[in-house]
Amino acid sequence: MSTERLVVVGGDAAAMTAASQARRARGDLEIIALEKGRYVSYAACGIPYYVGGLVESHESLLVRTPEQFKQKQNIDVRIGHEAIALRPAEAKVVVRALADGREYEEPYDQLLLAVGASSVRLELPGVDASGIYYMASIDDARAVRAVLERDRPKRAVIVGGGFVGMEMAEALRRWDVDVSIVGRAPQLMRNVDPDMGELVSGGLAKLGVHLYLGEAATAFEQTSGRVSAVVTQERTLPADMVILATGVRPNAGLATAAGIDIGPTGAIRVDDHLRTSAERVWAAGDCAETLQLVTGEPYWISSATVASKQGRVAGANITGGDATFAGTLGTAIVRAGSIEISRTGLQETELAGRNLRFATEKVDFITKPGYCPASEPMTVKLIAEVGSGRLLGGQIVGGAGAGMRINVVVTALQAGMTVDELEELDLAYSPPFSAVWDPLLLAARGLRAKV
Amino acid sequence: MSTERLVVVGGDAAAMTAASQARRARGDLEIIALEKGRYVSYAACGIPYYVGGLVESHESLLVRTPEQFKQKQNIDVRIGHEAIALRPAEAKVVVRALADGREYEEPYDQLLLAVGASSVRLELPGVDASGIYYMASIDDARAVRAVLERDRPKRAVIVGGGFVGMEMAEALRRWDVDVSIVGRAPQLMRNVDPDMGELVSGGLAKLGVHLYLGEAATAFEQTSGRVSAVVTQERTLPADMVILATGVRPNAGLATAAGIDIGPTGAIRVDDHLRTSAERVWAAGDCAETLQLVTGEPYWISSATVASKQGRVAGANITGGDATFAGTLGTAIVRAGSIEISRTGLQETELAGRNLRFATEKVDFITKPGYCPASEPMTVKLIAEVGSGRLLGGQIVGGAGAGMRINVVVTALQAGMTVDELEELDLAYSPPFSAVWDPLLLAARGLRAKV
Repeated sequence: MSTERLVVVGGDAAAMTAASQARRARGDLEIIALEKGRYVSYAACGIPYYVGGLVESHESLLVRTPEQFKQKQNIDVRIGHEAIALRPAEAKVVVRALADGREYEEPYDQLLLAVGASSVRLELPGVDASGIYYMASIDDARAVRAVLERDRPKRAVIVGGGFVGMEMAEALRRWDVDVSIVGRAPQLMRNVDPDMGELVSGGLAKLGVHLYLGEAATAFEQTSGRVSAVVTQERTLPADMVILATGVRPNAGLATAAGIDIGPTGAIRVDDHLRTSAERVWAAGDCAETLQLVTGEPYWISSATVASKQGRVAGANITGGDATFAGTLGTAIVRAGSIEISRTGLQETELAGRNLRFATEKVDFITKPGYCPASEPMTVKLIAEVGSGRLLGGQIVGGAGAGMRINVVVTALQAGMTVDELEELDLAYSPPFSAVWDPLLLAARGLRAKV
Repeated sequence: MSTERLVVVGGDAAAMTAASQARRARGDLEIIALEKGRYVSYAACGIPYYVGGLVESHESLLVRTPEQFKQKQNIDVRIGHEAIALRPAEAKVVVRALADGREYEEPYDQLLLAVGASSVRLELPGVDASGIYYMASIDDARAVRAVLERDRPKRAVIVGGGFVGMEMAEALRRWDVDVSIVGRAPQLMRNVDPDMGELVSGGLAKLGVHLYLGEAATAFEQTSGRVSAVVTQERTLPADMVILATGVRPNAGLATAAGIDIGPTGAIRVDDHLRTSAERVWAAGDCAETLQLVTGEPYWISSATVASKQGRVAGANITGGDATFAGTLGTAIVRAGSIEISRTGLQETELAGRNLRFATEKVDFITKPGYCPASEPMTVKLIAEVGSGRLLGGQIVGGAGAGMRINVVVTALQAGMTVDELEELDLAYSPPFSAVWDPLLLAARGLRAKV
């Protein structure tokens, strides 16, 4: 009897968490991981902090090397190996070894697709000039950090006002680069409502970042092949360096070509056990679709925590377990300079088209008692259903200590709490941590009167 | 028709919150507040931060003055007026004006007892020497701060290793005072389990505080009427200043003398509307008993948040409303130097005598990814019922960013969550805030396997 084999396509959070989980459950399984890049199991979310210099070496971001996976867990990690086609009917993957271009077929008993997401590519004149970077990989990060150290660029333009754009703005400001953000949307961070986005803009402005929102980049000017400016509909912004941070999309190409079902979000459709529509093929992480827990509808998010959790569930089920991944609230948190932004559940802009009566409450308060020197402004926005009082979502923008309070809203949402119940929470209080009335309780109180 | 009148006995959180709430509901009500001290509506929890110098002036701790209550809310606040007896049958309070010793009767239609708690007095030789302070009032705080500024004491001994003792240790270390804590219990903070208390001791030691635990103070030595040392069962500790922080007890004397029911905790018994056993007499804040939400049993806690919430409920009900205060989880948080300690629900030492099978899980992890320079150790302990998996309590000890995560456990407890549900929480993640696997999720995962 030959050994059963699991082939994992991908090498980061979902892939290697699943492989590790499968190894824990089944010592006898043959496990192969195919990663087209140079690195596996790296902390992609740490990239802006490495670029900014808060993290000294890129090696700190590497959680485990291929050699360590081999030695400690007997997992055969093949870097520089790209899966170029799937043949579910034959239970084979076609692989290309990038070093020599050799192609071969790898048979599997179980296959996990954990191929992640890719940056949205901009098709604009001049976009291939040097000095223009996507921030998708450790290699990208090393290139940008090297330029910052060596060339000390004076001006940078970031295209895209989402999470990565804001984190990169903070990172570049640490190198005293003059930073501008160009964003097609009229606000930063479309996963908060416009009124909260206004507060985020204020925070970025305090960090010295110039904002050009509601303006699309239309071209990149260059001098001797090197970028020199970003052209928008309104103006030309000189730039020694450009970061493209216009979002990511699930890598669904391999699955699509193999006839595997894709969901309405463009990601690979999976059930709550992370099975795809093809037999013995599973998907996890940024390439897979999930559900929004409040609506129960298909949802896609690029998230290291979702990927890690899905990796565990997939690894368990592949080895005969019965684990489930129910979905996500779309929880997110980001720091930009001195402000913290977090959100979970549904926001007003997502609720607009729905047949659901909702009310919102926004409270401007403080993180700590006013007599504490470290007291900072903190704005909380809560949304609940009119009638039932069921909580639907929350957003926070504020100073140090504000952001992580979103986890109270996360827990309340997953428990199906009403605003009445939220208002009664026995939240922790002492002056270094909070005011007597936590801003969340004040927001719940205000909202209660409206639902 | 004469005006209806509410008499409030007390002048801090519960008292003035209730008075304010009553005023909002009933513009016509006559409201009198009797406060025996000099200050009303002050932030008692801020005292250690004022003593430590983080808060410059004691006036910052005064939320509102008697004059402001009069002018803005037409509340007649009488400082220096002590209620010395209650006559519920006649609906009168006997009051003594401390300035001239005059006594008078004050009739009421509704009476709120919000008389707080008092320091446990030590009956030990030498305890009346000068240089020995309780930390119960703004006057105490001003006296200690004045001595720190003027005399620059070299050595202080704090008797009591609870919250206030620890906060005072931090405060005195800020003045470079050599600080020792003497505690009768074998651990600091008896509202965490001994294993977590060990971690707290480690944190205090790092702050340079000497700990003498499991040793009772037995006497105070003095030189010319001024304290010079604290004598314990084991040793004599020289001291230029002594802080007594051996806990507080509810002020139930007035109520007891008037025949009003006292609960098993020694505090005034109230129902969920905060009615006492006497007609038209209510109680709120540190003098009132409440329920432990996990057990449903009578419980007493000295807490500014509970007092404020009860004040609101009492004020609403006194004016014809129908509000309830369900109880508390005993949530608490404290900072001591660089460590944060928090707890909620039931701990092992409280569960020991009960007919309830429980399991515990303790996880040592980090507040942020290891590659972040500000990553700190964080230990989480969770407790759940075996069989049902119902969460029973949680405790956290760790560096900056650890403590407030207790609010996730608070919310989960109030929602009646199981550890399975806790493990599925979509908690916020990004490197400046948390590791990919939040320590709470790791603890829930470990506990799940045991329940």
